[in-house]
Amino acid sequence: MISKKILTMMDSSSFIRKMFETGAKLKKEFGKENVYDFSLGNPAMDPPENFTQILIEKSKDHHMHGYMPNAGYLDVREKVSEYISSNQKTKVTLEDVVMTSGAGGALNTVLKTIINSGDNIIAPIPCFMEYKFYCDNHGGELKLVTGKPDFNLDIEAIGKAINSKTAAVIINSPNNPSGRIYPEETIQNLALTLKRKSQEIGRTIYLISDEPYKKIVYDNIVVPSVMDAYKNSIVCTSYSKDLSIPGERIGWLTVNPGAEDYANLINGIILCNRILGYVNAPALMQRTIAELQGISVDVSLYRKKRDYLAEKLASFGYKFRLPEGTFYFFVEAPGGDDMKIVDLLKEERILVVPGRGFALPGYFRIAYCVEDSVIEGAMTGFEKTAKKLGLLQE
Amino acid sequence: MISKKILTMMDSSSFIRKMFETGAKLKKEFGKENVYDFSLGNPAMDPPENFTQILIEKSKDHHMHGYMPNAGYLDVREKVSEYISSNQKTKVTLEDVVMTSGAGGALNTVLKTIINSGDNIIAPIPCFMEYKFYCDNHGGELKLVTGKPDFNLDIEAIGKAINSKTAAVIINSPNNPSGRIYPEETIQNLALTLKRKSQEIGRTIYLISDEPYKKIVYDNIVVPSVMDAYKNSIVCTSYSKDLSIPGERIGWLTVNPGAEDYANLINGIILCNRILGYVNAPALMQRTIAELQGISVDVSLYRKKRDYLAEKLASFGYKFRLPEGTFYFFVEAPGGDDMKIVDLLKEERILVVPGRGFALPGYFRIAYCVEDSVIEGAMTGFEKTAKKLGLLQE
Repeated sequence: MISKKILTMMDSSSFIRKMFETGAKLKKEFGKENVYDFSLGNPAMDPPENFTQILIEKSKDHHMHGYMPNAGYLDVREKVSEYISSNQKTKVTLEDVVMTSGAGGALNTVLKTIINSGDNIIAPIPCFMEYKFYCDNHGGELKLVTGKPDFNLDIEAIGKAINSKTAAVIINSPNNPSGRIYPEETIQNLALTLKRKSQEIGRTIYLISDEPYKKIVYDNIVVPSVMDAYKNSIVCTSYSKDLSIPGERIGWLTVNPGAEDYANLINGIILCNRILGYVNAPALMQRTIAELQGISVDVSLYRKKRDYLAEKLASFGYKFRLPEGTFYFFVEAPGGDDMKIVDLLKEERILVVPGRGFALPGYFRIAYCVEDSVIEGAMTGFEKTAKKLGLLQE
Repeated sequence: MISKKILTMMDSSSFIRKMFETGAKLKKEFGKENVYDFSLGNPAMDPPENFTQILIEKSKDHHMHGYMPNAGYLDVREKVSEYISSNQKTKVTLEDVVMTSGAGGALNTVLKTIINSGDNIIAPIPCFMEYKFYCDNHGGELKLVTGKPDFNLDIEAIGKAINSKTAAVIINSPNNPSGRIYPEETIQNLALTLKRKSQEIGRTIYLISDEPYKKIVYDNIVVPSVMDAYKNSIVCTSYSKDLSIPGERIGWLTVNPGAEDYANLINGIILCNRILGYVNAPALMQRTIAELQGISVDVSLYRKKRDYLAEKLASFGYKFRLPEGTFYFFVEAPGGDDMKIVDLLKEERILVVPGRGFALPGYFRIAYCVEDSVIEGAMTGFEKTAKKLGLLQE
């Protein structure tokens, strides 16, 4: 009775649902505190202290909850554009910024604006697999391209994958699930390839940069500016991760003012933000985040979690590349079987996501945005599993 | 460079954009206080007093802003389901309720779930024309059916419009723009027709009831329960109008527990709410509205505005049906030319929306959710225009 496509999607996404069901069952059986849930990127950390203060202040103002221009409050976009200009090495104004319902809202809005039915959108492996749905929503197809063994982009492979139906390339750096930050040189090479390929196929290939983890970086690494490297770029992001407010659905997108077909692009995006039913980004949250430009939760706390986990996991014999950003470890599945390690860890009441959830089955993802007690509590289980798999001597 | 379809949409929706541009220009030229803007359903009234109090209280709690199940917090859905059960004459549980990003989010989620490419969705004229985009977003086509002269549904015409490609009928009562509430008997007849036609075409025709104005009703009229009348029904709504918080994007949908294919329908809807990029309804707003079930702004204030306008407009010779709900008057365009009256009123610095914006060109819409001073200030202009048009003797 419902759409045939949605029926199929429900079937194919049932392994993730099964995972959650198993998790819920485990929590019911053993108590929530005895299940070590690393499956979701849902920060346990509270937002920065002044977040609540500003929120309360703003909520007392009159006419705080009404409609505003679909692109968002002008003064909020002004503040966001100043912040963007300060760290993207590209001057943007409020006209180039659209406030959105999180990065998910931003990406859907952009994709609807640029996709002609049958187009493809290229994304590197591993990646956040909701992209597949987001492209399909608007008649496009996500085309996955294998990355380098160190999770860097394979620019040559991306170039080869581009054809006359390619509308855009999506990148996500720092990357979910690998924690990889693509280096400056890689971004420059990607830009060169996109310029060359755009000319070759006679069509603008947009670069969509999904940057919700940009502020969650370690070792003073700076995420290279996509806007500076490539003029046909659109940056999408949210405050979900850096302010620990993923349930509030607040983010923005910005169109490079140097983009070809700029006026149609930005006006199309504003139209699509409305007609997709988002209408506008939540009002009070817009007002609140306007005062928090450049602010984030205390990243040193994530750093401690990362370092603790890195030491422990390595000592148990697990193999991984140290994440440069995000709050994810993407660990090799011993023997290459991601479902097997996920199942073994489940026996220890540890929940992780198999790599196939990110188009790379040889790995599993640990989301370490959880309480220290969860991380510490899970170590025995990780160790026991390592022994079972022969990574560690009994 | 952008999608051809979006380019066309921008062209065709340019008359509305032009209207807003003219409005902005007028406000700049004459001062905001000298322009009488009745164009938007954006309530000037503040939310009920305890709204802000509850919002502030809730914002102090820990873990208030994280992800929750995509369908919304269980305890919020519990409270909403109790409220629905109390006024839809149908017992629903939290399992039947999905919290959404406003009614726009709810409608898109439902439409994506049920539409197979090429399907049609029937809506009566006049109606909120965003429906057209919402259907098109998911490969469906909005099929408009003429209503009765008193803005009631023409059940026979709806029956005739249904064919094998019909996935659903959308109704909106109290109706934007007409303020009409479809009577109990009409809803019963619609249900009978949908049952008969579903059998005839061998496919479930869903009834989608868009009810954001349900609490903004006058003269103790009760909006008939759609769920009680027809089991294959889905109710969508938001708190935008009754709590005066349209910018916050908070609403819900509920699937009739007696609907055919119930499990696929509700699970498909929860999936679509996620993959459309809404992910979930804004967290803090969920917590807040949970405590405000059955509460609304003071409708007697709208009632006063309605009665004042009704008396004045009638005395100037304008013809209209008294709205039973909503905060809209849908007034006959003298001579049938909606663009002419819109232009004449603009000369008096009065902004209204032509009926063609609701698929009924012989009318114009006045949104009276504005300050009394705006209504009073516009009366001279309405009178002068009436004289120009010969409705009133000089």
